[in-house]
Order: sequence, then structure tokens, then C-alpha cells
Amino acid sequence: MLVLLHHTHVDTRSQKPKKNIMRSDVLHECHRWVFVVKKGYQEREEAIQTSVITKLKGVTLTNSSETGLHLWSAEDYVIPPNGEQVFFIVTNYIETPNQRLGNLIMNCVPDGQCQSDYDCAEGEAVIAGHGIKTGVCLNSTGTCEINAWCPVEYSSRPTEPLLSEAENFTIYIKNFVRFPKFEFSKSNVLETSDDTYLKRCSYDRETHLYCPIFRVGDVVHWTGHDFQDMAVKGGSVGVLIEWNCDLDKDASECNPQYSFTRLDMNQNNSATSGYNFRYTRYYKDQNGETYRTLYKVYGIRFDIMINGQAGKFNIVPTIIAIGSGIALWGIGAFVCDMILLYMMNTSSYYREKKFEIINFKYDQQIVTMGPKC
Amino acid sequence: MLVLLHHTHVDTRSQKPKKNIMRSDVLHECHRWVFVVKKGYQEREEAIQTSVITKLKGVTLTNSSETGLHLWSAEDYVIPPNGEQVFFIVTNYIETPNQRLGNLIMNCVPDGQCQSDYDCAEGEAVIAGHGIKTGVCLNSTGTCEINAWCPVEYSSRPTEPLLSEAENFTIYIKNFVRFPKFEFSKSNVLETSDDTYLKRCSYDRETHLYCPIFRVGDVVHWTGHDFQDMAVKGGSVGVLIEWNCDLDKDASECNPQYSFTRLDMNQNNSATSGYNFRYTRYYKDQNGETYRTLYKVYGIRFDIMINGQAGKFNIVPTIIAIGSGIALWGIGAFVCDMILLYMMNTSSYYREKKFEIINFKYDQQIVTMGPKC
Amino acid sequence: MLVLLHHTHVDTRSQKPKKNIMRSDVLHECHRWVFVVKKGYQEREEAIQTSVITKLKGVTLTNSSETGLHLWSAEDYVIPPNGEQVFFIVTNYIETPNQRLGNLIMNCVPDGQCQSDYDCAEGEAVIAGHGIKTGVCLNSTGTCEINAWCPVEYSSRPTEPLLSEAENFTIYIKNFVRFPKFEFSKSNVLETSDDTYLKRCSYDRETHLYCPIFRVGDVVHWTGHDFQDMAVKGGSVGVLIEWNCDLDKDASECNPQYSFTRLDMNQNNSATSGYNFRYTRYYKDQNGETYRTLYKVYGIRFDIMINGQAGKFNIVPTIIAIGSGIALWGIGAFVCDMILLYMMNTSSYYREKKFEIINFKYDQQIVTMGPKC
Repeated sequence: MLVLLHHTHVDTRSQKPKKNIMRSDVLHECHRWVFVVKKGYQEREEAIQTSVITKLKGVTLTNSSETGLHLWSAEDYVIPPNGEQVFFIVTNYIETPNQRLGNLIMNCVPDGQCQSDYDCAEGEAVIAGHGIKTGVCLNSTGTCEINAWCPVEYSSRPTEPLLSEAENFTIYIKNFVRFPKFEFSKSNVLETSDDTYLKRCSYDRETHLYCPIFRVGDVVHWTGHDFQDMAVKGGSVGVLIEWNCDLDKDASECNPQYSFTRLDMNQNNSATSGYNFRYTRYYKDQNGETYRTLYKVYGIRFDIMINGQAGKFNIVPTIIAIGSGIALWGIGAFVCDMILLYMMNTSSYYREKKFEIINFKYDQQIVTMGPKC
Repeated sequence: MLVLLHHTHVDTRSQKPKKNIMRSDVLHECHRWVFVVKKGYQEREEAIQTSVITKLKGVTLTNSSETGLHLWSAEDYVIPPNGEQVFFIVTNYIETPNQRLGNLIMNCVPDGQCQSDYDCAEGEAVIAGHGIKTGVCLNSTGTCEINAWCPVEYSSRPTEPLLSEAENFTIYIKNFVRFPKFEFSKSNVLETSDDTYLKRCSYDRETHLYCPIFRVGDVVHWTGHDFQDMAVKGGSVGVLIEWNCDLDKDASECNPQYSFTRLDMNQNNSATSGYNFRYTRYYKDQNGETYRTLYKVYGIRFDIMINGQAGKFNIVPTIIAIGSGIALWGIGAFVCDMILLYMMNTSSYYREKKFEIINFKYDQQIVTMGPKC
Repeated sequence: MLVLLHHTHVDTRSQKPKKNIMRSDVLHECHRWVFVVKKGYQEREEAIQTSVITKLKGVTLTNSSETGLHLWSAEDYVIPPNGEQVFFIVTNYIETPNQRLGNLIMNCVPDGQCQSDYDCAEGEAVIAGHGIKTGVCLNSTGTCEINAWCPVEYSSRPTEPLLSEAENFTIYIKNFVRFPKFEFSKSNVLETSDDTYLKRCSYDRETHLYCPIFRVGDVVHWTGHDFQDMAVKGGSVGVLIEWNCDLDKDASECNPQYSFTRLDMNQNNSATSGYNFRYTRYYKDQNGETYRTLYKVYGIRFDIMINGQAGKFNIVPTIIAIGSGIALWGIGAFVCDMILLYMMNTSSYYREKKFEIINFKYDQQIVTMGPKC
């Protein structure tokens, strides 16, 4: 079919300008796609090996009437503490200290009411959770007795984040990527002899690209949200580090690109947003009796995502790219012709000329086909 | 070669029906593959950003002779407790309370026997683990003395899962996906003003697709296994959420698809199945002496896997798809011919006709192009 | 363009041998690429489902002057303990026992000096972390008073790894892979009736491929590093398990391949290497006063990465591969011609012969090709 259209090139001069405008657009787009966007001449490596270590810095003091003074340092507010790629920072919490397992008079939950023990099936869990019915109905209160950790959790979430200071904590993200196929590896941390640099510096896209230290407040801000709002109910933030390396160029041009998004909601809707969970600390008194402190923590979950690919010139994909390029050229042109022929009302002259050409073409090209098979 | 077959279309009518059956099958398959399966006319986006938060609900009471009453709520039986994408639920356990570090008479393990201290190399670990030899041979028992946490772990795993009630616990999976390229995002949680909905509802493929609350027993059942069996030794379950979105259609047609598989074994073999690990809780008595409780927990590991891609019409891939479609058409036909010619015993008439055609073919092919469009 | 070269085939016999050498290289390479490397005739499945469970074995005794005897078993030195795919082994640590929250005289950090309370803004965090200023300047020492956990952490890291014995710990990696599309699944653990095998054996590429038990020291060694060096400051190691399965062959030929790399540094540079974090254990005394032990642990982070794909014969990709193969053949040949024509100084005879051909071809196709190159 290439013949077809290239002949139209030659013969149907009248259409040429008009058609070429159309066609050249598509063709150029196609070529751009194959050669520029897809870098068709390169062998690509997407299976990168990567390691991420995170470390938080910062400390804050909370002082609640019930539970007194708390000093929150990284080993407390980072969960888990072991420098993972995905971690959670406490920004708000409800503490319920000195819970002991015992019989509790249950009167807050709907399925607590009872006339007789019959209403309190033994071993049945309370819908609201937290407890198991003992099977006894307390006539005094007309509610079932339950086995639970008493006192029950204070249910009121602070409306102001108790760790509002967390806005100024800093996240240090050490990322190391390796492209095994090309035996190329690089880190996002500046290789410097100045040991104090990483203590002082703070990330800046222009001036400090290789200082991977981020203020929590900034990261949240870059996602288009406000830290103090987010800190109350919590949320989930994604930090994407992209390594797109053209290894035909110098290694110094293979740089990390950071982007920040809020993962748990879209701008307009907050129905499903928020992040919280509970954890406990268990103690034993001198009699060996177990008691515990229950924490319900709200906070921000950070997910460091690494994404990378590298490309390097290689003859085989080049040939293929050229090939598909050629094919595209023809196909693109061919499609344009079709469009021109059938979808646009072009001059009947053009139409008939076309067919005349087709007929006229009854003697070519086949040579090429025979051997090919 | 295209010519070739299209001529057979024209000339060798005798074969036509027979061949076309074969060919049309393949060709149709090829076209389906390119256009329907691969949606060749769409620009695709597979690099989705996703966030997952999980929360378990349910509480159960265990009562063992040695260790008394235990109330298991989510903060205890979910490990880690922080709402991860991969989490473990305790369904069975061995508790060894009040272990203290001390000298223990070792007599259970094979390498414990000794005639003299010479047999008990100091600092050598006991093969079975749990202890380090002190270098002393106790003549009384004829075994090495070891440094270990005493008492040693009770080695008998309960044959009935202690947390059999876990079957009725519920998993709430909040998943949020975003396709950055198309600026499209969606959650698997119903956007409703009815706050109680998510408290009452339970997932159903038909009626409650957007209620991501699953009964643990059901999830295990859907993998083709029985919860109570699995609960004894533990296991590993994968929950796959797939988002395949054709964004040319309405957003309401982009829905999550859930699938459930057991990851740690195939149906017929259980040799390598099971999931258990140990963790400890450390305490100090009033003298500052450390003691601990050792838990060996068996349970089910849930791995929430998100998988998604979106497609949207775009002119460039369309052209390419049409092109490859055309190519396939020809190639497919060509291959069929080859098959017919050489792999099938077709009439010698057909064979010679073919070759005659080939020679005779020095003047066509365009014909083949016309119809092809 | 195909015409071109096939004509040269026919007409320019003189060049044929020479050219074919060149061309056949490229073509062979191309075909190899499509059929052998890419296994073009197979339908591929890369979305594997995989489960990993890890378990460590080994125990060691540490004896520090300050903190006395410590017995480290898996539940202590593996963080997190729950058999994850990514886990950390403690090889070195700094223990700071019996910290209590209180007012501490701060004199180690630069911003501690003060003339008056004015220099000690209340609530301000100390740059070095660990504390919050109380707002009081202690004239005695001329430093700010801070709220912190006292005593502060001993800052000296042991120069010899305290858990040097960790070199002999063993890692058991149970991996299970499933290719849903082909309903094929396999494990890296030998299916044997001999229960003791997995207790005795140790991985060997030749003799014990299906014994996934690795000595920590060996794994580090295989990355090209020395365990005792790495153990001091810690590091990050990647264990890659690859499953490349040609399911047209027997299942027994689908075997795991292990490879080991250090992820946190390249051979020559150790600037950014190391892995450490802090965690705490909280206690309460008989008065309910909280105190804690702070651990700063150095160690090795293992990241078990699973990578796999399977292929099985399928007619559709086969047809496509043959097609692209044919295309490549032509294109490859075409490219070779171009190289021969324009980039190499071939005999002018050849050159003119070429053009003669080209001219001769002016009523085919070539027109289109000339410009195209």
C-alpha cells in the first residue's frame, strides 16, 4: 500500500499540499512517538534494584491532663521504627493508661440492655467490640456484664493535633538504585567529604537536589494539603522518586525526580480519608498481674515509591525501531489516505484519480513479496 | 506473500471454503487480540498510585489452664497492628510466660549428653537453638548445662485453634487508586452520607460491591480452603483487587474486582504450608530483673495486592494498532497458507496451482490492499 | 525497500557473499532476538503471585560491662519478628537501660550554652534532638536545662560487632510462586517425606538447589563483602529469587535462581552505607513510673525479591513473532544495504550497479524508499 500513496505523491500534485499538512502531522507524531518518546534506538532496563532507608528527626513534648508529660522522639512516633520504606508518623493520639482485664458494666452499646441473663449470651462479643459478654445481666443497670479491658477507651479524638510540632520534623530518605544490566548504580545522597552537609542541608529542587532531607510540613504542603488539617485525622502521602536515566549521556544527567501526592483522597472529597490504628504496651505489676496502656494513634503514613528505568544505545532495538518507524510512516500515510478518501468530501477528481492509480498499479511490488516468504 | 493468498482467494475457489474456515479463525483471533483484548486503540496507563489501609474488628476470649484468661482484640491479634497492606492474624498460639535468663539443665536435645565438661564447649550454641552451653557438664543428669530462657517453650501446638472465633472477625480494606496520566482516581469504599452503612454492610459481589468488609472465614473459604483447618498451622492468603478501567466509558463502569487465593500451597500438597513465628513481651520486676513472655503464634497472613490499568482513546496507538492489525491479517493468512501447503496433505492440484500462481504473480498485490482497508 | 535488496540478491551476485556475511550477522541477531531471547512464539505470564516466609535460626550471648548478660535469639535480633519478606538482623548495638524522663543538664550540644533563661526558649527542641528546653538556664554550668530521657544515649558505637556470631545464623526462605494464567505453581522447598532434611541441609547451587537455608555469613560473602566489616555499621542486602519457566518443557526444568547483591553501596564507595535505627522497651516500676531501655541497633537488612515469568506456546504470539521476524529480515537486510551503500566504501561498481537498479526500479516502490533513508 506504500506504493499506493507514494504514487499519489507523484501523480496527484493538486492534493499534495493539503494532504501533506494532514499527513505530516500524524507522521511526525508517529515518528516522535517511536524515536523520541519511546527512545526506540535504546535497549531499556526497567528491573532496577533499589534500597530505601528512612530516618526521622525531631522531638516534641505533649502534656495531657490525664496522662501527664510525654516526650515524643523518633523511636516513639515512627511506627515501625526500623527505617522502612513505608512508615507512619503519629500526629494525634488517644491514650488510655492502666487498663486491666476484668468485668465491666457495659452500658454504652446498643446490644447491652437486658431483662435477664438470657439476653446476655455468654461468650458473645459486643457488637461495638472491646468486650465479651459474661452471661450475667446486672439488674441494677439493666445491662449485660462484659469481660473487657477497663477502663474503656476514651472515645473523644482531640480536635487539635497533639503533635502539631511534627510539622517541623525532618525525613531523611536514603535511596540507592542499581541497573544490573548496565552495571550502573547511583544514590540520591551527595557524595561529599563534608560530613556536616547532611546535618545542615534541606532539599531544594534547584540548589540541593542531592540533599534528601524533607520537612514533614513541606512534604504535606507539596501534596496540596495543609499539615495541621491532615494531622487531626491522619492521612496517607506518597513520595515518588523517579530515576529516568539516558546512559548514553553522562551519569551526572541521571538525577532523581521527586513528586508528592496524597494517596488516600482526591482534592474534593474527604469521606474516605484518615489514618489511625491502635497499639498497646503491656506491663506487669509486682504481683505479676498484667495491665496495659492502649494508644489510638492518628497520623500520616508515608510511602516512598521508587520508579526508574535506564536506556542505552543498542543495535538490535535500533533496527526494530527504524523498521517500525518505516512501517508507521507507511501505515500512517495509508490511514491518512483512507481518511481523505472515505471520511472527507474531497474532490471527485481526487477520488477517481485514486482508482485510476490503483488500476494502473497492477504491475509492481510483488517481486518483493515472493522471496520474503 | 499477501498477494499469494489473496490470489488463492480469487483463483483456487475449490479450496476457499475449507481454507477460510481455518484462516478466518486465526485472523479473527488475531484481530480480537489486537483490538479487543489489547484495546490497541487506547493509550494505556499501568503505573497506578495506590493506597491501602486495613482494619480488623472482632474480639475473642481464650482460657488456657496454664496462663488463664486472655482477651484478644485487634491490637493484639493483628501483627503488625498499624493497618498495613500485609498483615498477620493470630489464630493459634503457644504461650510461655515468666521466662527468666538462667542456667538450665539441658536434657531434651541430642547434643546435650556429656561425660565431662570437655563435651560441653563453652559458648557453643545448642543445635536445637534456645541456648548456649555454659561449659559445665552436670554429672547428675549427664547433660550439658546451658544458658537459656527458662522454662523452655512448651513444644506442643494446640490441635484445635485457640482463636477459632477469628473466623467471624471482619477485615475492612480501604483502597484508593489513582491514574496520574488520566488524572482519574477512585476508591473501593462507597461514597455515602449514611455513616452507619459501613458499620452494617458486608461485601457482596452483586449487591454490595462497594462495601469492602470481609468476614475472615469467607475469605479463606473463597480460596477453596477451610478456616478451622488453616487456623491450626496457619497459612498465607492473597487478596487481589483489580481495577481495569476503560476511561472511554463512564467512571461508574470502572469497578474493583476481588479475587482470593491461598499463596502458600497448592490444593493437593500441604508439605510447605503453615505460618508461624515467635515474639516476646519483656517485663522487669521490682528488682529490675528482666523476665519475659514468649509467644509462638500460628495464623493467617493476608497480602492485599492491588493491580490496575486504565485505557483511553488516543490517535497514535490507534494508528499503530490498525497497522499491526493489517500486518497480522496478512501474516496470519500467510501462515495459514503455509500450513495448508506443507503441513496438510492437500490436493496436488492445489499445490501446483499455488506455484503457478507465484510465478504468475508478478503483477498484483494492490488488489489485496484495496479490500484490506 | 525490500525490492531493492531482493533485487540485489538477484542481480549483483558479485557482492552477494561479502554482503551476506554482514547481513546474516544482523539478521541472525534479529531472529535470535525475536525467537530465542524473546521466545516470540510463547504467550507470556509475568503477573505472578508469590508468597515469602522467612525464619532465622541461631542464638548468641553478649556480655557488656554496663548491661550484663544478654541472650539473643531470633525473636530478639530479627526485626520485625513476623517472618516478613524484608527483615533486619541486629549485628551490633548500643543499649541505654533505665532511662527516665526528667530534667537533664544539657551540656553536650552547641546550642546548649546560655547566659540567662532568655537564651533557653521554653519548649524549643535541642538541635541534636533528644530533648526540649525547659526555659531555665543553669548558671552553675552555663547551659540550658532540657527535658529528656536520662541518662542520654551512650554515643560510642562498638568497633567490633557485638553479635559477630550472627555470621553463623541461618536464614530459611520459603518461597511459593503461582502463574495463574497457566495454573502452574511451585515452591523452592524440596517436597520430601524426610522431615529431617530441612533441619540438616544447607543451600548449594548444584547439590541442594531446593534447600533454601542460607548461612548469613555466606549470603554477605556472595555479595562481595565481608560480614564482620558489614556487621559494625550495618548494611542492606538483596536476595533475588528468579523463576524463569518455559512451561513447554517439564516442570522439573522450572527452577529458582538465587542472586545476592549489596543494595546500599557500590563496591568502591561506602559514604552512604550502613543501617541503624533505635527502638525502646517501656517498663513501669511499682509506683507506676515509666522508664525504658533504649536500643540503637546496627545490622543487616535483607530484602527478598521475587522475580518470575513463564512462557507457553500459543498460536497468536507465534504468528505475530513470525510476522515481525519476516519484517525484521527485510528491514535488517535493508539497513545493511544502507550501511553498505553509504557508510562503507564499497566498489564503485557496486555503487553504480545499485543506482542502476534503483533507476530501473523507478516504477516500483523504491521512490518511496530513497527519501525514507
